[in-house]
Amino acid sequence: MKNNEGMGMSQVSDSELIESVAFDAQGLVPVIAQDSTSGQVLMLAWMNRQALVLTLETGRGTYFSRSRNRIWVKGEESGNVQEVISLSLDCDGDAIVMSVQQHGPACHTGSVTCFSRVRDVWSDPS
Amino acid sequence: MKNNEGMGMSQVSDSELIESVAFDAQGLVPVIAQDSTSGQVLMLAWMNRQALVLTLETGRGTYFSRSRNRIWVKGEESGNVQEVISLSLDCDGDAIVMSVQQHGPACHTGSVTCFSRVRDVWSDPS
Repeated sequence: MKNNEGMGMSQVSDSELIESVAFDAQGLVPVIAQDSTSGQVLMLAWMNRQALVLTLETGRGTYFSRSRNRIWVKGEESGNVQEVISLSLDCDGDAIVMSVQQHGPACHTGSVTCFSRVRDVWSDPS
Repeated sequence: MKNNEGMGMSQVSDSELIESVAFDAQGLVPVIAQDSTSGQVLMLAWMNRQALVLTLETGRGTYFSRSRNRIWVKGEESGNVQEVISLSLDCDGDAIVMSVQQHGPACHTGSVTCFSRVRDVWSDPS
């Protein structure tokens, strides 16, 4: 699944993307990793500017770990790497959707997605 | 599209969900609104505890606006409301995916999704 369906989409360059990100007071931006095939949201993690640059340079999902206070390549220990298909920045520049091909489960618990505790509010007729 | 595909999913109650959220130092949690039909990620916004309780009670996507410092029902002015299908909490409780039926465009710019500036990194073979 491509994330560039719908109206009003525009293509940006690496530098346009990097310069358009509104990093927060800690120098971070939340990144939503979405499976490019299934469309499932896999995880939410954070990038600083260096992690974003490395992600664009290497094509591998690379984050900033707030708990370990360092750059972290997803799958560097588990092998469950993310091949990056695209990055999409939102209207006010303070969130990114990253479309990925996820190797193995995204979650350290072994689940396909980290979002595994579900509260059904309303039954979807679709 | 249901967000409860895959292994390791569990159903939780409203109270289990509310009590399991790890709100940040500002009392907020990031919420990823995803279209229940297309799977597109529409927006990222924030909830405090009250917004989460109201979302569960009303079935309408309800957030906390950091810029306006108040509770905000999505579509309260535009009419572009979100009917909530499900909420899914991640493994460490600090992010939520909310599956919604979005009425009208999600973005105040008129775009279907707020994530409309796209950088293609690698061509998806799927």
